Formats: sequence, structure tokens, C-alpha cells
Amino acid sequence: MNFRSDNEAGAHPAILEAVARALGPKGGMAPSYGADEWTQRVERRLRDIFDKHDLLAYPVATGTAANALALACCTPPWGTIYCHPEAHIGVDEANAPEFFAGGAKLTPVPGPAGKIDHRLLAAAASQPVYGVVHHPQPAAVSITQATECGTVYDPDEVASIASTAKRHGLKLHMDGARFANALSFVGCSPAEMTWMSGVDVLSFGATKNGALAAEIVVFFQPELAREFEFRRKRAGHLFSKMRFVSAQLDAYLSDGLWLANARHANQMARRLVAGLSTLKGAQLLYPVDANEIFVILPPRAHDALQAAGAKYHSWPSDRPGERAYRLVTAFDTDPADVDRFLSIAKQAA
Amino acid sequence: MNFRSDNEAGAHPAILEAVARALGPKGGMAPSYGADEWTQRVERRLRDIFDKHDLLAYPVATGTAANALALACCTPPWGTIYCHPEAHIGVDEANAPEFFAGGAKLTPVPGPAGKIDHRLLAAAASQPVYGVVHHPQPAAVSITQATECGTVYDPDEVASIASTAKRHGLKLHMDGARFANALSFVGCSPAEMTWMSGVDVLSFGATKNGALAAEIVVFFQPELAREFEFRRKRAGHLFSKMRFVSAQLDAYLSDGLWLANARHANQMARRLVAGLSTLKGAQLLYPVDANEIFVILPPRAHDALQAAGAKYHSWPSDRPGERAYRLVTAFDTDPADVDRFLSIAKQAA
Amino acid sequence: MNFRSDNEAGAHPAILEAVARALGPKGGMAPSYGADEWTQRVERRLRDIFDKHDLLAYPVATGTAANALALACCTPPWGTIYCHPEAHIGVDEANAPEFFAGGAKLTPVPGPAGKIDHRLLAAAASQPVYGVVHHPQPAAVSITQATECGTVYDPDEVASIASTAKRHGLKLHMDGARFANALSFVGCSPAEMTWMSGVDVLSFGATKNGALAAEIVVFFQPELAREFEFRRKRAGHLFSKMRFVSAQLDAYLSDGLWLANARHANQMARRLVAGLSTLKGAQLLYPVDANEIFVILPPRAHDALQAAGAKYHSWPSDRPGERAYRLVTAFDTDPADVDRFLSIAKQAA
Amino acid sequence: MNFRSDNEAGAHPAILEAVARALGPKGGMAPSYGADEWTQRVERRLRDIFDKHDLLAYPVATGTAANALALACCTPPWGTIYCHPEAHIGVDEANAPEFFAGGAKLTPVPGPAGKIDHRLLAAAASQPVYGVVHHPQPAAVSITQATECGTVYDPDEVASIASTAKRHGLKLHMDGARFANALSFVGCSPAEMTWMSGVDVLSFGATKNGALAAEIVVFFQPELAREFEFRRKRAGHLFSKMRFVSAQLDAYLSDGLWLANARHANQMARRLVAGLSTLKGAQLLYPVDANEIFVILPPRAHDALQAAGAKYHSWPSDRPGERAYRLVTAFDTDPADVDRFLSIAKQAA
Repeated sequence: MNFRSDNEAGAHPAILEAVARALGPKGGMAPSYGADEWTQRVERRLRDIFDKHDLLAYPVATGTAANALALACCTPPWGTIYCHPEAHIGVDEANAPEFFAGGAKLTPVPGPAGKIDHRLLAAAASQPVYGVVHHPQPAAVSITQATECGTVYDPDEVASIASTAKRHGLKLHMDGARFANALSFVGCSPAEMTWMSGVDVLSFGATKNGALAAEIVVFFQPELAREFEFRRKRAGHLFSKMRFVSAQLDAYLSDGLWLANARHANQMARRLVAGLSTLKGAQLLYPVDANEIFVILPPRAHDALQAAGAKYHSWPSDRPGERAYRLVTAFDTDPADVDRFLSIAKQAA
Repeated sequence: MNFRSDNEAGAHPAILEAVARALGPKGGMAPSYGADEWTQRVERRLRDIFDKHDLLAYPVATGTAANALALACCTPPWGTIYCHPEAHIGVDEANAPEFFAGGAKLTPVPGPAGKIDHRLLAAAASQPVYGVVHHPQPAAVSITQATECGTVYDPDEVASIASTAKRHGLKLHMDGARFANALSFVGCSPAEMTWMSGVDVLSFGATKNGALAAEIVVFFQPELAREFEFRRKRAGHLFSKMRFVSAQLDAYLSDGLWLANARHANQMARRLVAGLSTLKGAQLLYPVDANEIFVILPPRAHDALQAAGAKYHSWPSDRPGERAYRLVTAFDTDPADVDRFLSIAKQAA
Repeated sequence: MNFRSDNEAGAHPAILEAVARALGPKGGMAPSYGADEWTQRVERRLRDIFDKHDLLAYPVATGTAANALALACCTPPWGTIYCHPEAHIGVDEANAPEFFAGGAKLTPVPGPAGKIDHRLLAAAASQPVYGVVHHPQPAAVSITQATECGTVYDPDEVASIASTAKRHGLKLHMDGARFANALSFVGCSPAEMTWMSGVDVLSFGATKNGALAAEIVVFFQPELAREFEFRRKRAGHLFSKMRFVSAQLDAYLSDGLWLANARHANQMARRLVAGLSTLKGAQLLYPVDANEIFVILPPRAHDALQAAGAKYHSWPSDRPGERAYRLVTAFDTDPADVDRFLSIAKQAA
Repeated sequence: MNFRSDNEAGAHPAILEAVARALGPKGGMAPSYGADEWTQRVERRLRDIFDKHDLLAYPVATGTAANALALACCTPPWGTIYCHPEAHIGVDEANAPEFFAGGAKLTPVPGPAGKIDHRLLAAAASQPVYGVVHHPQPAAVSITQATECGTVYDPDEVASIASTAKRHGLKLHMDGARFANALSFVGCSPAEMTWMSGVDVLSFGATKNGALAAEIVVFFQPELAREFEFRRKRAGHLFSKMRFVSAQLDAYLSDGLWLANARHANQMARRLVAGLSTLKGAQLLYPVDANEIFVILPPRAHDALQAAGAKYHSWPSDRPGERAYRLVTAFDTDPADVDRFLSIAKQAA
């Protein structure tokens, strides 16, 4: 019963097999640094999936690298990037975006349940600071999909933010560490979720959803990628045996594995939510759109779960006297674990 | 017949199996971000191998990350790092060391066959610049082992450089992208090659020698590592599912695999050299200590090899009218390929 | 009638004379880069004025340089600096603090009238992020004195903030671009306003208050200054003919000129406030503690003032339908200008 | 008898007076941050002097700021700037260029007497590295005029270097800390020395030649200046009371003061050289083109000069057993001091 994080999940067997197969026939040599066939195939797959035949895609191996490199292409060092106060790029990446962007700034724009309030964004981006050398220059907006609260922007919400961004010449970045979970929830097309709603660049995550270590930065505006390859190399994120990263992505994108994995994780989250909704004293902090659940648990349930070895993180709660927790499901969450978790909680409460 | 680079080699089956095994039993969850058992085991193995029980070791996934992060721990932004003019960190990493070290400088110190001349180093490091705010402050020396010319520093040569470094309070970094090949050539102990000869921090490579993507930064002076973990995270080089990197290193260090792989690569290089030594018109540019050969080939041999599909890179040669090439062997080089290469060359010449 | 900014004021004659005198007798040569007698004398004066005989002081020539260099000594690149959302360092320095600190972050902590609310600071600084590599590390607090709203922290308020800072090991920086104006308002000693209340490092401003271009960074914790001189040089802020900067500060600190200048500016502000308080429809946005006035003016008064050539900036106001303005007085504001301003406003309203 | 540095010289009275006059009539207020009439006039003067009516010019207050800001406009962070191994930007600015350029690299290109050998530059810039992400990208060349050895590039030499630079798309920067001295030696026009010979951006120095603290960055290619104003502000080098910097430059450029000052300094250097040429045992290290003399002095002459209180720096000499020194003259060097220096030296030798 480990609901600590989808980062603690294993890797999907099909992805492991793809890595092994990337050795190839006889001897197993292949061009290095991304000039291999796996990397090229991944880009082609993404062009099909996103229905955008001029997109550019660059594999990296961590979400922080994907975000920080993508954002560095969107802002000058004297720029600012608007993001939610709880955004991963702001609070969980040890200033990587600032580092990669040469000292650019993140400016928090709040909103309920992890989503930027587009009216507050409009107010922030309308300040008369453009071209005035004293002021950090508004350069980009970054939204997380699914958000750090487990909620999901629907395409209209993305478009509202994009519309404000475009009006001021800002780029729109989407941190899609859990993009598949978000997409699975909304049910729209990948294109509708991204470039058709105004997204310029996407950190497309795979690690949390079944890969070993593979993410890919997808540029829908090719000219935005102009400096990406130098930035990636200079940051040590260009892999010599790139095919072993790309092979993961290749398998991930084949036969709908990425969506199937996300669908399972989301289902397990809903199964948990269904059970918790009948647990007296349990209260969700946010709607559960994807695979993260933020919930106040009755103390007795929590104690019993801990005693039974269930693993999950505490979470800050605004409500005094109540203790909140985060439960995360993954592509490989066992329904039996969910059921056991619920049964222990109910028995104790 | 691909002798382009050990970066084009595949991965050793034992390492691939270890990655698959890192899924572990049932469900396969494991603590994230390096709190897993594989990462801990790798550090223990290194402590045994280097006979140094307080060393600290941090896995990363590229050689550039290993070097740039290690060096950033050795210099302030206003410092300078002495290295050979052909050092990988200077000419092949797109200014990653400068980036990670906040704008520190690399100062070239030449010497024959890719090795820093320790007298020139002594002269450079003796300039009266210490504590004077105008001048970049000498902070570290970085040597490559094996060097970019395929030669190897023996422990006495390392110690000569270290002695100059220590006299001026400089840290000594070793870029060991091909550390195993170097060690295999010299035949001394890992300790003798490093900390016993004065090395403070080592980029210990595995990727070129059989891993998929795994390197590890080894600090022999633990206090030097104080900031490493923040630097690694901030650079996007802390892996969430770290065990899949560490499992590679774990297998690499088990049962002497790392040394066996290097021994094979070196043997294949010697086999090539033996054959080339009887090829009229062929001339080595440098002694072949490890697994890289820099050689002038007679034009007819080159043409015949190209026609037969042999792959290897051209290399700049100082001698007018003669064309040089680089041949690299790897842990999985097939002796039959070597023999075929030699036979084609000889027939043509 | 120019109330646009104390940055538009001229320079005090005594300061200009001191610069001219710094030529010295015959030929006028003097040691360069701060090894001159003026620079040394300024440090001695500050030790007396602040009653702290181990303080270290380093002249620079702009407020942004003073702030950014001081803060860079207080945070690692992966750190965060708490400041008010309207702090000059956050909104008026084009990301200079982030640049100088290698990509560190500013985290806004709000509070009324430009002052950080110390309870919100305590909440922010109490997050369980210390030593966790994912999270920006709380490193420093920066307060502006007088604030960007023209208010002044009294020593107790400084001490409240310092106490939270110290509890978490954070450094406390004071941006004293208008330090003299603040001190003049409170009437306490320089020591009480700073190190006795827990301030570690002060950007001590002179430019706005009568100098040509001179500020000085004052470290009350000498060990905090360890890297300052290298940082200053590397940022191009070490002046070769430093005496011409230091001579300004020398005159500024002589015979109480700095306090006399500030007293005059504050008096002129109070004179304005007194007049505005009888102007129907005029409303102050904040208490006027120092030399900045934020005021809603009745439209007819504003129009008449504009027609008469009065200069002052518009200011964002939260109150719909009302237009706010900023008036700044300076060391050389002419009381006749104040009176004329008030008389025009009253006649029109 | 102080020949230590033109940085130890005073300021020219006409420049001091201009600063005082910048107070202006009545009250002395003026627009801040460079929107003043002095700053605009300086740009107009430079357009006339350089006969280039679209040049852009930005005052700063130190030579390091001028160089580092200019260079940051000429290279991406993954670029390299070719310069002489003794260039001020490489050895005397504590890595400021690397800092301002986000971690770009300086690559030394040697040549006799402080001048880059244009054939070595051509060889360096012809490496097949362009567009290859692994390699630092050649981006700019920086030459010092007059050089760190006191020699001067004539326009043909500048043009040779520029021609190599242009062939590879590199920008050409001139560090003109002693531009006036160089120009005075050659006797060509400012245009011939710079843009007509291919210079793209010039750090035009005034401080060493009579100003208090004033330099100006002159862009002959206006589009190169696109980011300059944000870079300057973000580095804390935009002065609020800019007129006091610009007024110095205004006076410096008026009535040929800059050339008259340099002519005097150069004459004093030639007077020294003339005397030294008859001093037995004295030997110049380099031709004396401008106002710096590098000379081996006979020990007895040196001892006598020291005893008489003469001030000048030791200088590294390659010739064993001989001690070299640097003598610098300035705009205000007293011929009597020169004559006394020579007379003491001759008497002793």
C-alpha cells in the first residue's frame, strides 16, 4: 500500500523491453547524441499524436531539465515567468528555472485548486512595464497539467490563459509531468489540450507514468526551439547513448501505452475517492481530476493505516486541527492495495 | 567495423539485466531521488574499490553533468580551472563547466600527448594573483584519464600535478570518462590512481564502457561535496527513479565487470595497433595507452576501408599533406571486425 | 515644482566641493581601487556613526549594485530571499539580485503599506524545506527603509522581522536607499535602526539624498563580507579612481550633512501633507513617514497643477474612479515650490 | 614621481567643472536614468567624432562594466570570445565577461607584443565547430587598443583581424580603455580606427585619461545594442543621476580635450623613452606606442629611484636575472617628474 508518489513506481515492462531491444541486432552500435533512429521515430510519433507536422521534440531524462530548458527558451534573463504559487517549477526545482534562464524571475499568480486565475494573470500582465528597463519583463506563463493540486485545466481554461498571454506577447509553457493523466481525464485530443488552445511548448512527461527516466520537450512553435540544442548540451542533458532514452519514449507512445497507463492510474484514484467519500470524517481538499488525492483523514483511520504499513505523505492543510495527506496512484497501482487501504480506514473510523 | 566512438557502443547485457531487475519483486516500488538501496550499495562498492571509507558518491547520467557539477564544487565563480587545451571540458561541453560554476574560467595549460606539463602548470599557478580581486583566482586543476589523445597519466604523473595543485591550495579533479581503460593500462589500484596520488574528486565514467547512461561523481574529500546535492538538483540531474541509474552502476562495479570491459577494449586497441604497425605508411600520432588510436593512414588504405563500410572519424593532423583518423574500440568490439579492418587496410596499401 | 523623484535632484554643494578637493594637492595622484585615504576614512566614519567598530563598508555607485551585491553575499544560488511584493529589488531592478546571486529567487511576503507582515514571514520561513534539495532554501530577508510606500519600520518592527529571520538562520538585509530619511523620522540611533535590531547588512544610500552617485554596503557581520570584494570587482563595480566616490560619502557623513539633508526632505514632505490635509478630495494612501507622498488628488487640482508645470508621477490606485499620484521631496526641495503647489491645488479644488 | 598607473591620476579640471556645472541653474533637477540633455549630447558628439550617424552610445562608469556589457551583446552563453592571453578582459577583470555573458568562454590567441596574430586567429576560427552543439561557438574577437603591452594596432592590423572575424560571422570588440592614446599615436581618424576597419563595438575609455569615472560603450552596429539597456540596468550600471557621468564625457569630448590629454601622456612616455635609450643597461620589452613603458632597469638605477621615492610597478620578465618594470604616464604627468626620474637613473647607472 504505497501511495507516496508515482515517482516511486517501477517501470512498465514494455518500456523495459524496448530499452533492451535498443541494443539492436549484432554488436548493437548506433549513432550517438540523438542521431539514432529511435529519437527520430519518437518525433514522428509526436507529430502524429499532436497532429502538428512541424513540431520539434527533444528528449531529456528529468522533468526539471525539461521544464528549465523549455522555459529558458521563453524568457530573457531580465524576464519574468508567471506561474501558480504552488507550481513545481517554483517550489520543487531548487531554482532550476532561474539557473537555466540566467537569473530570470518567477512571479506567482494565484488561483483556486492549483490553477492560475486568468483574471489575476491579466491584471499582472497588464502592468505598464514593457520596454522599461527597470522592470522584469513579462515573458512567459507556465501552467502545470495536471496541477500540483491534482486538478486539470480543460482546454477552455488553457485557452483563456493563452489568450491573455498572446495579448501581451508572452509564451505559454505547459509542465506536463502528468500530461497523460490530465488528457485522460478531459478526453480531448492532445492537440486540443495544447497548441490548439495556445500552448507554445510542452514538457511531456513519461517517467511518472511508466518510463525509467524519460521526458520530452515539445515545441509547437519551431522558432522557439532555436537555442534548445545548445542549451541542452551546455546543461549536460544531451545523452551520448540517447537511444536508451528515446526507446523508452518510443514504447511509451506506441499502441497507446501512455494513455492506458494514465487511465489506470486515474481509475485507481477514482476508486480511492469513491471509498473515501463514504468514510466519515474524510474530506477532499480539491476535486480529484487525475491521479493525486489531497484528503483530510480522520485520525483513527490514519493511525490504523500507518500501523498496517500504508505509505503516503502528510500535506499542509489550512484547516486548524485537521491533518491532510496526499495519496498518489500510478500506472501500476494494484486495485487490491486500494481496496485494502479503504477497508482498513473504514474499519478504524 | 564501427570504430567511431565508444559512445556508439551498446550496453552490456549484465547491465541491462540489472536495470530490469531493479523493478524488484511485486509492484516494484522503491524510494525515489536516490534514497533507494541500489544507490546506497553503489556508494559502498566504491568505498571498497577505492579503499576509502569516507568517500561520497553521487550518480548522474552524463559525463558533462559529472564534470560540470564536480568542478562547480571546486571553484568560486571568479576562479580559474587549469586544464589541457584539448580537454573535453574545454572543447566538447559547450561551456557547461562555466555555466555550472557561475562564470568561472578554464585556463589552458598545454603539454604533449594530451597531458598537462606539470612545469607549465607550476608556472601558471605561481603567478602572484592570489587574493588580488582583479585576477581570476586559481582554484582547481582538471586532468582527463585517459586523456583526449588516448594516453594515460601514471600515478607518479598524477602526483606531480597534485603536488603543484596542493602547494597552491588548488583542488584536483580527474575526468574519468575512460577511467577503467586508464586503470587497466597502468595496472595500479584505483586508490593509487586517485586519492593516494592527490585526486580530490573523480568523474567516474560508466557509459562509454558498457552502461546505458550512468556516471558517478566520487568525492575523496567529503567536505568538498557540501553543496553537491543542491547543485545536482538545481541542474535537473537528480533522477526521481534513481535506482535505474544506480542499478547500472551496481552491475558495472560487480564482479569486476568494469575492469573486464575496459580490458577488452584496450586489448582490441592493441590488436589494431599491432596490425597497423606493420602497415606501410601508417603512423601513430600518440602512444596508444587505452582504447583510442590516432593514426595517419595511407590514402589507399583509407579509401578501401571506406569502400568496405568501415566507420571512423577524421582527425586534425599537424603534418601537412597527411590525413589522420581516430579509431575507438569498446567493451563490445568484435575481434573479427578488427582483423577484417586490418586485412582490408593491408591489402590496399 | 518638480516632485517626480529624489533621483532627479541635483547634488549638494558640499559634496561637489569634496569631489573637487579629492584631486588633492599637486598633481592629484592617489592609490587606485579603494586603497586611498578617502575610502578608509569613510569606513572609520561609519564605524563611529553606527557605533560598531568591526563593521566593514564598501562603496559602490548605484543602489542596484549595493542591493544585488549585498544579497549575493546572503544566499546561495538555490536560496530564496523574502521581500515585500513591492520591494525595489523585486520590481525595479530588472532581476539584478537574481543575476548577482546566480539565479537565487525572491519570494514575496506581503503586508500593509509596504512593510512585510512578520507573521506572514514567520509562516513562510517555517515551511519544512530546510536541507531538502528540491526546495529553494530560505536564506535571507530584505526590507526597504523607508519602504516603497514611504513608510518607515521602527526598530521594534525591524526586530520582529529579525527575530523570525534569526530563528531560521536567515540573514537580514536592509535596502536603505532612503535610510537617512527613515532614521530622521524615527529619531533613534543608526545602531538601533540596524545591527542592534538584527540587521546584518545595509545598503546605505547617499545618491538620492545629495550625492552624485555613491552608495555604500555596510556589513555588520564581517564574516558575511568574505566574498564581497571579488563579487564587486567581477560585477564591474570596483572603481579605479574610487576616491571620487568615497569623497562624496566622506562629505555626506561629515558634520551631519546626511541627516540634515534628510531632515529637510522630510520637512518638505510634511509641509506638503499639512497642506493636502486641508485640500478637499485629497486622500493619502499611506502614512507619510519620510519623503514620499502617495495621494489621491481631486481631478481639478491635478489639472491645474499640470497646467502650471508641476511634475510628479501617476501611481496605481486600487480605488476605482480615483487617480493617485506620487510626490517626492528631496534635500534641495524649495519650500516656495511646495507652497506654490499647494496654493494652485487649493485654488483649483 | 608616480608612474604606477593612469588610474592613479587625478581628474582634469575641465571635467570637474563640467560635473559641477551639471547641477544646472536653480535647484538643479534633471531627468534621471539617462533621459537628460548631457547624455543625449554625448551621443551626438560621438556621432560627429566617429562620422557615423547611426551609432548608439551608452555611458557606464568603469572599464570592466563597459567591456563585459559590450561582450555580453556579442556572444551567446555557449560562445567563445577570442582575445590575447594578456588581455585585460581575461586576466584583470575577475571573470566579469564570463559573468555578464552567462558563462561564455574566452579563448586566448597569442601574438607578439600584446597583439593577436591574425593568422593564429584565422586558424582558431576555422575549426569545424560551427553549429555543432558540443563545441563552444566562436562568437567574437576582442582586441585592446592600446594593448596591454603598450603597443597599438594600426588600422590595417585591425582590418586584418576584422576580416577574419567577418569571414566567420564573429563580432569585433575593441577595448579602448586607452583609445585616445592609441589614436593619438596612429594619427588616423576615429572612424578609420574603428568601424571603417571593421570594429562593431568599442569600449571608449575616459577615466584613465582625465575623467573621474566615465566610459562609454559605442555600438557601430546598432542592432547589436538591442539588449544593452536591459543588460546595463540588470547589472546595476544604469545611473540614476546619469548626467554626472555624461557631463564628464561631454567635457572630455569637447574642444579636443580627450586628444590633447592623450597627446600629453604619450609625449611624456616618449620623453621617458628618449632618456632611457641613453641609459646603459636599460632595455625596452616592447615598442612604446602609447603611454605605457615596459623596461628592464639596471639594478642600481632601480635602487636609486626607489630611494628617491619614485613609484612604479614590477613586471614579469622572461629574461632570467633581469628585472622589468612598468612605467605609465598620464594626462597630468609633470615633465619635471620625468626629467627628475631620468636624472636619478642616469646618475646611479
